[in-house]
Amino acid sequence: LKTVGELGERRIIEIMLKHLEKAPLMAVPVGDDVSAVTFNDGNDVVVLKTDMLVGKTDVPPGMDLWHAARKTVVMNISDLASKGVKPSALLVSLGCPRSFKEVDFVRIAEGLNAGAREYDTYVVGGDTSETEDLIISVAAFGLARKERLILRCGACPGDILATTGEFGLSASGLKVLKEELAVSGGLQKSLVDAVLRPCARLKEGLALSGTGGVTASIDSSDGLAWSLHELSRSSGVGFVVDNLPVAGKALEFSEMFDFDPVELSLYGGEEYELVFTVKPDRWEEVERVIEREGNSLLRIGETTETRQVLLKYDGQIVEVEARGYEHFK
Amino acid sequence: LKTVGELGERRIIEIMLKHLEKAPLMAVPVGDDVSAVTFNDGNDVVVLKTDMLVGKTDVPPGMDLWHAARKTVVMNISDLASKGVKPSALLVSLGCPRSFKEVDFVRIAEGLNAGAREYDTYVVGGDTSETEDLIISVAAFGLARKERLILRCGACPGDILATTGEFGLSASGLKVLKEELAVSGGLQKSLVDAVLRPCARLKEGLALSGTGGVTASIDSSDGLAWSLHELSRSSGVGFVVDNLPVAGKALEFSEMFDFDPVELSLYGGEEYELVFTVKPDRWEEVERVIEREGNSLLRIGETTETRQVLLKYDGQIVEVEARGYEHFK
Repeated sequence: LKTVGELGERRIIEIMLKHLEKAPLMAVPVGDDVSAVTFNDGNDVVVLKTDMLVGKTDVPPGMDLWHAARKTVVMNISDLASKGVKPSALLVSLGCPRSFKEVDFVRIAEGLNAGAREYDTYVVGGDTSETEDLIISVAAFGLARKERLILRCGACPGDILATTGEFGLSASGLKVLKEELAVSGGLQKSLVDAVLRPCARLKEGLALSGTGGVTASIDSSDGLAWSLHELSRSSGVGFVVDNLPVAGKALEFSEMFDFDPVELSLYGGEEYELVFTVKPDRWEEVERVIEREGNSLLRIGETTETRQVLLKYDGQIVEVEARGYEHFK
Repeated sequence: LKTVGELGERRIIEIMLKHLEKAPLMAVPVGDDVSAVTFNDGNDVVVLKTDMLVGKTDVPPGMDLWHAARKTVVMNISDLASKGVKPSALLVSLGCPRSFKEVDFVRIAEGLNAGAREYDTYVVGGDTSETEDLIISVAAFGLARKERLILRCGACPGDILATTGEFGLSASGLKVLKEELAVSGGLQKSLVDAVLRPCARLKEGLALSGTGGVTASIDSSDGLAWSLHELSRSSGVGFVVDNLPVAGKALEFSEMFDFDPVELSLYGGEEYELVFTVKPDRWEEVERVIEREGNSLLRIGETTETRQVLLKYDGQIVEVEARGYEHFK
C-alpha cells in the first residue's frame, strides 16, 4: 500500500477520478484549470474552480493572515483568468485553530475582501469550522460564452509560445524567506513581494480570450516547466523555449548566492503568469490588446510537432523536466 | 481578546461579514442557507453553497471515509434543497493527512460519487492538499429562476409551520455511537443510520418551490430549535409549535435511557429535514405535491405575530431556546 507521499497529489487525483462518474455537458476536459457546466442550449457555461490553502504547506514564514487570505483568492482567480473568464463571485470555507482571536478573523476577512475587490468580484458566502491548522478553501465561479473559453488543448505546431511576464521572482523570494538570506532592500522587497502579494493576470486573460488568436492557455501556479508539459500533453504538441523569461532580479539574486537561474524560473511554482500559444498571423493583434492593458507579451518559444519540451539556453539544448510544485511529495 | 471558543461560529461570521463588502445583485439576503447571484436581467440566479466537514468535529466514531464523504455532499445539497434549487455540479477541496493510503482516496471518491449521483448531480472538479486532519470542503452550485427561490424571510402570521419529517433520530444515534450504548438491533440500526446516512430532502424542496404556496424555508442541519429561531428572525414573526415531531424511535430510545425526547428533537442538529411555512389556503395543494413525491408533510404549528418561539408539549407552554450545534463552542 502506497502512502500519500509516494503517490503525490497528481496520482491521487487520477485515482479519485477513476471513481467519480463523469458529468455530461462538460465544456472543459477533466484536468484543465477549471471545470465548466454548459447551459442555455450549450452556448453558455458556468465556470467553477476551487483551491485550498493550508497553513503548514502554503504559508511561508513572513506571510501573515491578510496576505494568506488574499493569496487564496488570487490562486483561484488566476485559473479563471487563464481560461479568459471573469469571476462573478467567491465562496470561502475557513478552518481555524482554537487559538485564533477576533483580530485574526478580521485580518482574514480583510485579505479576502482585498483580493476579491482587486478583481472586481465579491465574497458572497462561506462557512467556518474548527481545524488544527489554518485552512482557507475558496471556490470561484464565473459565467462565460463557451466559444470564448481558452482550453489547454488547442495548441498547434507553429504557434508562438508566450507568457504574460517573467519568472523566478517567487522562487527567489521563497528562498529569501525560508533560508533567511540577507539581500539589499530594493531587491529583497521585489522578491518577497512576489511571494506575499502575487497577482492574477485577469485583465490579460480576458483580453486574450477576446482576440480569438490564442489557441491554448494555462496558469503557471505549478511552475513554468510543469505548465509547458501540461500544455504539451493536452494539445499533443511539443515546445522549444528559446527565450527563457528569467526576471532580471531573479538573475541578480541567483548570481549573488550562486543559485541556478534556470532552476528558479522553470521549476519554482507559485507564480501566476499565463502561459499560452498564439496563431502566428494573429501575434501582432494579440500583442496590441495586451499592451492596451498596460502589459507586454513575452515571446518565449515555439510550438513543435515532436512532443518534447526543449530549452535552448546558453548555447545548449536541454529537455525541460516534467516537475514542479506538488502537494504530499 | 476573545478566543474562538468564546466567540463561537455565529459571532465569527458576523465579525467577518463586517469586513467583507457586499455584492450588488444578490438574490438572497446574507445569512440565508445559500448565496445567489443574478444574471439574465435579474430573472435567473446562480445559487452557491459551501460547507466543510472536519474529521475531529464532524465525523463521529463509526463513520468511515465513504460515509463522511457522502455526508459532506448531503450537507451542501440540503441547503440547496431548502431553497428549492436543483444542484448542477459539485466541487471538492480535500485535505488529507500523510498517513492516508490509496484505498482511503478510493473510499472518499466513491462516497462523494454516491452522494452526488443520489441527487442526480456530479463532482466536476476539485483540489487536494496535505492537512493534519481529514478536511472535505464541498461547493455546490445550481441554476434557478429567481422567483422560485424560497427564502427564510417570507413567513407571515397565520402561516402553517411544517416539516418534511420527524426529529430526534440523529441526536439519539450520535449518543449511541459516542457513548457506546447497547440498543437492540432494529432500533440501533435506525438511530445509527440517521447519523451515518443522512438524506437531503431535495425532491421535497423542488416540489415545495413549484407550488408557490411556501412562504419561507430552512434546512434543519443546526437543529429544529435553531431553524425556528432563524426563520423567526429572518421573517420577523414567531411560532407556536403544538405538535413537536418527535420520531417514534427517538421516543423509544429516550425512554430506555431516561433522556429527554424534547431535548433530542429540538436541539440535536445534524438532521436534514426542511422546516417551512405554508399559506393556509394552499396547505392541501402543498400536502398533495409532497405525497406525490412519496413523503408526507408534518404540520407542527403556526406562525404568530409575537416574535417568540413557543412549544406546547405535555400540557405546558415553554420557550424554545435559540441554541443548536455550533462550531468552536
